[in-house]
Amino acid sequence: MTQKIKVALVGYGNLGRGAEAALAACPDMELVGVFSRRPVESLEFLYPATKGLPYADIEKYKDEIDVLLLCGGSKSDLPEQSPYLAQHFNIVDSFDTHAKVNEHFAALEAAAKPAGKLALMSAGWDPGLFSINRLLGEAILPLGETYTFWGKGLSQGHSDAVRRVEGVKLGVQYTLPNEAAIEQVRAGKMPQLATKDKHLRECYLVLAEGAVAEAVEKAITTMPDYFADYTTKVHFISETDFYANHQQMPHGGFVMRSGFTGKNATANSGNNQNIEFSLKLGSNPEFTASVLVACARAVHKLALTGATGALSMLDLPLGLLSPKAPDVLRKELL
Amino acid sequence: MTQKIKVALVGYGNLGRGAEAALAACPDMELVGVFSRRPVESLEFLYPATKGLPYADIEKYKDEIDVLLLCGGSKSDLPEQSPYLAQHFNIVDSFDTHAKVNEHFAALEAAAKPAGKLALMSAGWDPGLFSINRLLGEAILPLGETYTFWGKGLSQGHSDAVRRVEGVKLGVQYTLPNEAAIEQVRAGKMPQLATKDKHLRECYLVLAEGAVAEAVEKAITTMPDYFADYTTKVHFISETDFYANHQQMPHGGFVMRSGFTGKNATANSGNNQNIEFSLKLGSNPEFTASVLVACARAVHKLALTGATGALSMLDLPLGLLSPKAPDVLRKELL
Repeated sequence: MTQKIKVALVGYGNLGRGAEAALAACPDMELVGVFSRRPVESLEFLYPATKGLPYADIEKYKDEIDVLLLCGGSKSDLPEQSPYLAQHFNIVDSFDTHAKVNEHFAALEAAAKPAGKLALMSAGWDPGLFSINRLLGEAILPLGETYTFWGKGLSQGHSDAVRRVEGVKLGVQYTLPNEAAIEQVRAGKMPQLATKDKHLRECYLVLAEGAVAEAVEKAITTMPDYFADYTTKVHFISETDFYANHQQMPHGGFVMRSGFTGKNATANSGNNQNIEFSLKLGSNPEFTASVLVACARAVHKLALTGATGALSMLDLPLGLLSPKAPDVLRKELL
Repeated sequence: MTQKIKVALVGYGNLGRGAEAALAACPDMELVGVFSRRPVESLEFLYPATKGLPYADIEKYKDEIDVLLLCGGSKSDLPEQSPYLAQHFNIVDSFDTHAKVNEHFAALEAAAKPAGKLALMSAGWDPGLFSINRLLGEAILPLGETYTFWGKGLSQGHSDAVRRVEGVKLGVQYTLPNEAAIEQVRAGKMPQLATKDKHLRECYLVLAEGAVAEAVEKAITTMPDYFADYTTKVHFISETDFYANHQQMPHGGFVMRSGFTGKNATANSGNNQNIEFSLKLGSNPEFTASVLVACARAVHKLALTGATGALSMLDLPLGLLSPKAPDVLRKELL
């Protein structure tokens, strides 16, 4: 039996809980503990064996951890924590502030490289698996078009916006892919589609006492930036229904590449070729955490070969994500 | 302008023709020529600029080629050509004899490593893209089940079998994924499915003069190994219809992983998570060749970093498949 890969988490929200559960499904890895800025006693873990550890002490654990999984948010946690921790640990984060990816990469490279550590950024499904599939699509079918659809998924920002409307007691918003648009892409029709053409919005609301449904609906469907440009459906439901059926965090989506090949093919003529990758996720944070855990394994294995610095999933030989040896992977998966 | 990647093909059947077309869509690559054992004058290329070169002279071109794309068959060409050529060139092949993958890998490693060359084997979609997706599925969702469906695709072996039946003048056989089985998987029902449960077979036949349709149909649907265990539909069509509608080489398929995550999840309980990758290919050889061409680019870039020996797509950082620089890929795709 080789030694288990020693992983610790930083942060314990939905993503951290998902990682705690994901690690329990990986016999080749063990959870050293969960670092948090909250009082250790206040953390309620999924499993009694999980240890809470004070974030302030994290540097003391340098030699006891193979990879740190950062489970904080991209807005304020990761820009600060990732470069700091990459000076002391191999790390994996799920940084997803699109406009700042190269800035974040540079900060990680500057921190990890001189320290001889490896820092994998932007792991998860988007960015992550979806990025890989956007890459495969355009690299394999250079003549063509890539489409990303999201949903069915709970949208945090839009749910917040809905709940701020007067007369709304409880509410959630789901983004749905537009099936008619997906069918056009699948048929090789190469449609030009804006984000609003690709998605529908659906709200499930509980009205506050005395609120008028029509007024609430109008306030939502005409809300600029959030809903006005979209086809939006508003459903009014009971509080019982809300708590019974709208507490999950489903998500998912599609990455599609429709392209053309053959003699004198162009971006819209020739033999049509379609690549489609899709996710239907019962729990968004648990799935994202499962990707992060597999990435932690890959980072550990890659670090053992002497690799250092920053990377994303686009730089990762994907075989490293698996606990299996290369010859077993070839035998079973090629 | 950096120098173009110099690629040459070995073999000029359907795959070679597909590669010739695919290279024309890649401005960063150029086709040095096509090596063939056939008389050079007998080769009819898609583009007049393509040069035919005698296979016997291939070693003379060592210094003029960055990557060789092997477009021969797995049965007799590649087991001999790949290890021989890997002593002199960086190569990409599409070796797909499942039972011999590790044997082939060992032969390539032994040939390429001491020569300082890089040899990528089993590139394409299955093995290749499907292998990557089977790997992602089981690495990310260790509690779950992987399903591979093929089709709709023209099956060469089954078409040959159909044409050998007495009374058949012309015929093709398509393998179709069983949509009902796919729906069960998508719904997270974790069905146990044999190959015959996952696929249907469909034959399009032109009868020979005087042949009796019922007898031909019975001979096919009861044929052991090929059809007897499958649901098989036989369509009798005219010769005109046959030549008009059954000369293409479509293919495709699905790799699906249905798994579970969360506290105390098992391989069939918890939050259901579904990953699905699918291809709908207008031309199987042109798509496979497009994957090979992108792999040739990756092999060239990886070889420039000093990498040597044998590898498969599971060992390849996928970003290398793209002509774009790493920071551009991060900016555009993460």
